[in-house]
Amino acid sequence: MAVNDFQEKSKELRAGVDLGGTNIKVGLVNWENRILASASIPTLAEREPKEIVKDMADTVRKLLAEINKGMEDCAGVGIGSPGTIDRNQGVVLYSNNIRWENVPLAQLLSEELGVMVRIDNDANCATLGEVKAGAARGCNNVTLLTLGTGIGSGIIYQGRLLGSGGELGHILLEQGGRKCTCGRRGCAEAYASATALIKDTKGVAAAHPASLLYKLCDGRLERMNAEIPFQAAKQGDREAQKLIDRYIQALGELVTDIANFYQPEKVLLGGGVSVQGEYLTRPIEEYVNRNRFGWSHIPKVRVEVAQLGNQAGIIGAAGLIEVD
Amino acid sequence: MAVNDFQEKSKELRAGVDLGGTNIKVGLVNWENRILASASIPTLAEREPKEIVKDMADTVRKLLAEINKGMEDCAGVGIGSPGTIDRNQGVVLYSNNIRWENVPLAQLLSEELGVMVRIDNDANCATLGEVKAGAARGCNNVTLLTLGTGIGSGIIYQGRLLGSGGELGHILLEQGGRKCTCGRRGCAEAYASATALIKDTKGVAAAHPASLLYKLCDGRLERMNAEIPFQAAKQGDREAQKLIDRYIQALGELVTDIANFYQPEKVLLGGGVSVQGEYLTRPIEEYVNRNRFGWSHIPKVRVEVAQLGNQAGIIGAAGLIEVD
Repeated sequence: MAVNDFQEKSKELRAGVDLGGTNIKVGLVNWENRILASASIPTLAEREPKEIVKDMADTVRKLLAEINKGMEDCAGVGIGSPGTIDRNQGVVLYSNNIRWENVPLAQLLSEELGVMVRIDNDANCATLGEVKAGAARGCNNVTLLTLGTGIGSGIIYQGRLLGSGGELGHILLEQGGRKCTCGRRGCAEAYASATALIKDTKGVAAAHPASLLYKLCDGRLERMNAEIPFQAAKQGDREAQKLIDRYIQALGELVTDIANFYQPEKVLLGGGVSVQGEYLTRPIEEYVNRNRFGWSHIPKVRVEVAQLGNQAGIIGAAGLIEVD
Repeated sequence: MAVNDFQEKSKELRAGVDLGGTNIKVGLVNWENRILASASIPTLAEREPKEIVKDMADTVRKLLAEINKGMEDCAGVGIGSPGTIDRNQGVVLYSNNIRWENVPLAQLLSEELGVMVRIDNDANCATLGEVKAGAARGCNNVTLLTLGTGIGSGIIYQGRLLGSGGELGHILLEQGGRKCTCGRRGCAEAYASATALIKDTKGVAAAHPASLLYKLCDGRLERMNAEIPFQAAKQGDREAQKLIDRYIQALGELVTDIANFYQPEKVLLGGGVSVQGEYLTRPIEEYVNRNRFGWSHIPKVRVEVAQLGNQAGIIGAAGLIEVD
């Protein structure tokens, strides 16, 4: 531990920023990874990066004032940003979500606030948050998959975020298969995201108007959501059950690949679909431990639901400012 | 650097052992990663582990004597073993190849020789060897795929072997696809190993007796090897070209997954099929950099042929004994 680290730790807290396409969530986080104060402001992503950064800075200062603290109590600010990040340079290389290209985000905010700023990908920050304070506390090797519009992911290896890559939504399930938004064919995201599940459910409902799938959305397929197929399956609908079985297998294959890649202790599921809890995690865990390589000679992989929801991003971003 | 490390480095060399199902290769390796002396002895794998370890120890001592050195000049012995290894405990958990289960290999050899012994998987050692002295010198993030009977693999992340996993032959290419030796369906090994290529080539040759594939093995399919499809394709045979295109795509998909996992600087190809050199590496490199995620915003992945052949295992095993 360098002298500088003592100085940083002597400061009471860090700020964590979860930069999204719609909202920016800011929180002050103490060294026990508790959020002391937080706020959410609209991103208004079409603005210049500088204006957005100014809002972030103002919100940090406002929150500090709310709890009677000042910048001198803040060891630094961590930001989770969507897109491809150069964490060493602190630059958002590209984000489709907020339409940024080569924005030196860390430098811009650091100039505003006069403290250390570190950035990383938002899914990475959420993963770090779960390790610091959520479902993966005490684990050194963890993957988080967030099942939403796409599949977000973060990999913790030996207690730290993987340096680059970690794009697990774009791991292959099917050579020459469905076209993915990334341009490749057959990516996991095209089969196992919430979007893919909803699309598949609509298809099955349309083909089987007698099924519960059709009834549960009142025959209005545009109202389909990712809970309906699970509801229908639990109520004994056969078409829904087949759909869910396929979905679980697809996700099971992805988690098996992750196990064969680096054998994490835990794989966490987050995002909308993860509200299904054990109904989802139990068969996936069983699938993975049956299908991965070397199954009887290495520890089992546990599959669990992430715990922190939206707070994971703030806590994990704050966790980028650390003492080690 | 601890005091102990100075003592170790003051010793002139390390021994590296490449334990195979047929032969045991032993080498003495200096700190510049050059092999000073080496020998190969038959494994006779049906013997008790203790007898095999005794032979290893005798060979290390014999080689030291050959170059007028003694055990006091040897900082330790590294062993690359087939199978699933617990590197921290120094135990071969399971090896189908040499029929071992829970053999405390490091302890057994350490008792024989009185020096530090470390073990790791043989493919991991080969990968480390290529980083220390081969095609990946100076790289921090490298994967080696050996295309042989199966697909062996090793992952170097931030200059070190990945702690566990790294079973890249068992990453999925095709959900519900070909049955793999590991029990899972659709693994890369079932499509992109030399064995898979030979099997596929036999199938195409049998279906197309007019093709060069059939002629180049004199119509004796049992003589088929992994070079014939490449020869036939280079001579303009259309069926062979289609076969090679499919093979390259399968391998390209695996390397794309590796890129999406952790974005290595280089992926090296070793093993029998890799003699095809740039004919293989160039289209795969092109495929990967076109299909991986975030393609224009992150550095390209280079795909190259491994350089050290059989020496990689010895040099990498010796590399397990290091100063850091």
